[in-house]
Amino acid sequence: MMGEIKEEVMEKGRLAREASLKLMSVPSEKKDGALREMADSLEDNADFILTENEKDQKRAEGKISGALLDRLRLNTKRINQMASGIREIAGMDDPVGEVTEMRKLPNGLIVGRRRVPLGVIGIIYESRPNVTADAAGLCIKAGNAVILRGGSEAISSNTAITRVLSEAATNAGMPGGAIQLIETTDRAAVGEMLKMNDYIDVIIPRGGAGLINFVTQNATVPTIETGVGNCHTFVDSSADIEKAVNIAYNAKVQRPGVCNAMETLLVHNDIARDFLPLVDRRLKEAGVVIRGCPKTRKIIEAEPAIEEDWDTEFLDLILAVKVVGSIDEAIAHINEHGTKHSEAIITENYTNGMRFLDEVDAAAVYVNASTRFTDGGQFGLGAEIGISTQKLHARGPMGIRELMSTKFVIFGDGQYRE
Amino acid sequence: MMGEIKEEVMEKGRLAREASLKLMSVPSEKKDGALREMADSLEDNADFILTENEKDQKRAEGKISGALLDRLRLNTKRINQMASGIREIAGMDDPVGEVTEMRKLPNGLIVGRRRVPLGVIGIIYESRPNVTADAAGLCIKAGNAVILRGGSEAISSNTAITRVLSEAATNAGMPGGAIQLIETTDRAAVGEMLKMNDYIDVIIPRGGAGLINFVTQNATVPTIETGVGNCHTFVDSSADIEKAVNIAYNAKVQRPGVCNAMETLLVHNDIARDFLPLVDRRLKEAGVVIRGCPKTRKIIEAEPAIEEDWDTEFLDLILAVKVVGSIDEAIAHINEHGTKHSEAIITENYTNGMRFLDEVDAAAVYVNASTRFTDGGQFGLGAEIGISTQKLHARGPMGIRELMSTKFVIFGDGQYRE
Repeated sequence: MMGEIKEEVMEKGRLAREASLKLMSVPSEKKDGALREMADSLEDNADFILTENEKDQKRAEGKISGALLDRLRLNTKRINQMASGIREIAGMDDPVGEVTEMRKLPNGLIVGRRRVPLGVIGIIYESRPNVTADAAGLCIKAGNAVILRGGSEAISSNTAITRVLSEAATNAGMPGGAIQLIETTDRAAVGEMLKMNDYIDVIIPRGGAGLINFVTQNATVPTIETGVGNCHTFVDSSADIEKAVNIAYNAKVQRPGVCNAMETLLVHNDIARDFLPLVDRRLKEAGVVIRGCPKTRKIIEAEPAIEEDWDTEFLDLILAVKVVGSIDEAIAHINEHGTKHSEAIITENYTNGMRFLDEVDAAAVYVNASTRFTDGGQFGLGAEIGISTQKLHARGPMGIRELMSTKFVIFGDGQYRE
Repeated sequence: MMGEIKEEVMEKGRLAREASLKLMSVPSEKKDGALREMADSLEDNADFILTENEKDQKRAEGKISGALLDRLRLNTKRINQMASGIREIAGMDDPVGEVTEMRKLPNGLIVGRRRVPLGVIGIIYESRPNVTADAAGLCIKAGNAVILRGGSEAISSNTAITRVLSEAATNAGMPGGAIQLIETTDRAAVGEMLKMNDYIDVIIPRGGAGLINFVTQNATVPTIETGVGNCHTFVDSSADIEKAVNIAYNAKVQRPGVCNAMETLLVHNDIARDFLPLVDRRLKEAGVVIRGCPKTRKIIEAEPAIEEDWDTEFLDLILAVKVVGSIDEAIAHINEHGTKHSEAIITENYTNGMRFLDEVDAAAVYVNASTRFTDGGQFGLGAEIGISTQKLHARGPMGIRELMSTKFVIFGDGQYRE
C-alpha cells in the first residue's frame, strides 16, 4: 500500500517535472488561449462536475459541519465563477521573461535579471474545490506545472475538475502532465510530496494551522506558509471613535471565517470607557461572543478571557478583548501573540501611527482601516494563490509573480575574468 | 552535555531575537557609524586576533591540507581587508524602509510595499574566519541580528573576531546581542539551530555539498541553499574558437577552488577537432587533468571519464570533457547534471544563444563569457553573503537586499470592507 502511494506520487512528480521544462518557454498567447479553453471547458462540463460533486456531498453528509458542507458544495453559479476566475487570469499580463533589472558593466557585459517560472508547484489544500481551478490557472499562467492535493472530502469533485482542466489544456497545446492531482486520499501521499525535492520546487499549504504546521515541520521541499491569521486591531487613546467602531465591527463581523478577520481587539485604557460600550452594542447585535480581560469586564459584559484566547484564531463570531495601558503594551502583545498576518491601529496621533507601521512585524500593517482588506484582489495584485505569513520569498497576498523566480542572463562578447 | 548545548543555542537565539526587534528601527547613520567603529576595532585589535588565530593554526597543523590551512591563516593584510569590506558596506545605501511599490486604490487606501529586515539570520560556515566579519557587517546593515556558527578549526579566531565586532557595535549604540557566535564546537549545536523556528528566521549554509545537504534535509527553519556549483561551458559548432579557448581556460584555471569555476566542458561534435587540441594545450600547461568521454579521447589525450564525473564539483585542476551532437544534447546534459549555478554557451549563432538563455535552468546563464563572473561584486550588487542555487526568495549572488523581506503598509482614513 505504502509502495503504491509512493509510486503514484513519484510518477506524477516525474510527469510534472517533464511538463515544467517545456512550459518554461511556451509563448504567452498560447498559454492564454489554453486558459480560455480551460474556462470554457469547465462550463461545458458543468453537469459532469456537479454529478461528481454530489457524490462528495453524499459521503460527507452528517460527517462534517454545515459550514464545511457549504464550502464543499458546487452549483452552476460557482462553476461559472471558477471559469471567470481563469478567464481573468488569461487576461492579465504575462510576467514570464520580464526583465526586472538590466545593467551594462564596465567590462561590457550586459547583466539582466529575468523573471522565470519556479518549475513545479505543489499545492496542499483543504476542502474547497474551487481552489483546484484557481491554483491550476495561476500556476499555468506563471509557466509552472502543478501537483494538487485536495482534501479527501472533495476527491470526486477535484478529480472531475482536474480531468476537465487537464484535457482542455493538453488539447490547446500545453505539455501533457502540467496539471496533476494526487488521487490517493491516504494522508501518506502528503508525506511523500513533502520529501520530493527532485520533482517539486515549492509546496504551498492552504488550510488550517494543523495542516500548515505539519507541512512546515516535515517538508524538505521549500514551503511557503500561508493563511493562519490571529489578527489584532488596536484602538489608540486618540482614535476617532466612530471610525474605530466601524472598522472593528467590520474586521470581526463581515466574514468571520477568514484569515484576515480580527480575533483580538486591544483598547487603550484612556478610551476604553467611551469606546467599548459603543462597539459592544454593535458586536452583540451581530451575535458576537466577547471574552474580555478583567478591565474589559468592568466596562462591558463579557466572558472571562483565558490566556489561550490571546493565541487563538477563532474563525467564528468570538472576540477576545484586552485593555492596555500604552501603545508599547499593544505592540508587544501583537508581536508576541500575532501570527504576522494583518494588524491595525486606529489613531489620530501621527507618531503612534508611524510607530505602529515600523514596529509591528506582520505581512500587512494598517493605520485606520479594516484588516479585511488583506487580499490580492483588494490590493490590486489580481488573483491570489494565498497569503504568505512567512518572510522568505513572498509576504502577504501572493499573485502570479510570487509563483516565479528569477535568473541572471548575461550577454558577453568573449569576456573572461582577470 | 546535550542539555548545555541546547541551552547555549536557545539563549543566544533569544538574545538575538530581542536585539532584532530593536535593530529594525535603528536609523541609517547610526548603523553606518557602528559599522565604521567595527572596522576600526578590527584593525585596532589585530594583535589579539592574530594571537588567537595562531592557536587555531597550531591545533590544525598536520590535520588539514595546506590549502585549508592557508584559508584558516590570518595576517595583518587579511584583517585590513576584512575592515575595508565592512567600511564598504557602511558606505552603501541603506535599503531598510525603501518602498518598492506604492499605489492608491479606488477606495482611497494607500498601499505600499516596504523593505524590512528578515529578523534573525543564522549563518553556518566552514573554516574561513573572514566570513565572520563579512556576514556580521551585511546582516547589521540590513537591520538583522545574526547568529554565526563557524567551523571548529577556526573557533579561537571566530571567537576573537566576534568579540571585537560585538563590543564595537554595542559601544556605538547597537542593541546588545545583535552579533552572536555559537561557541560550542559540538556538531549538535548545528542541529539545534536548524529547529529553532521561534528565534531564527532564515539559515544560510555556506560550505561544501555535505554541509548544505545536511542543513536543507534537517532544517525546519527556512534555509537558502548556496554555493555548490557543477558549472558547464558549452562550445557550440559556430563558436569563435579564440574566444572559446580563452573563456574555457579562464573558467577552469583562474581560480579552480570556487563554486563558479567550470567543472565540465561540453563541445559540439562539429568543432571538436578544431577546438579541443587548442584548449587542451593551454589547460595542460596549467596542470589541468582531463577526463574525457570516448569521443574526446579520440581527439586528445585524456583519462577516461566515468559516469560520476558528470556530477562532480572537482574544485580542483580536473576537468570533465564531453563531445555532444547538438545544442539539445548539451542543454539536456546541463539540466540533468548541473546544480543550477552558472552555465555558459560560446556561440556565434543568435538563435542558439537565445535558446540557451531560455532553456537552461540556472541562477546565471551566459552567452560568450566566463562563468567566473557570477559574484555580487562583479555583477555590481556590492558585497555578497553567498550565491543562492535555489529558486525561492533569492537566486544567484545575494547582497544586502536578499537579506531582507517586505511588508505591506496601508494608510487608511476609516475604510472598511463592503
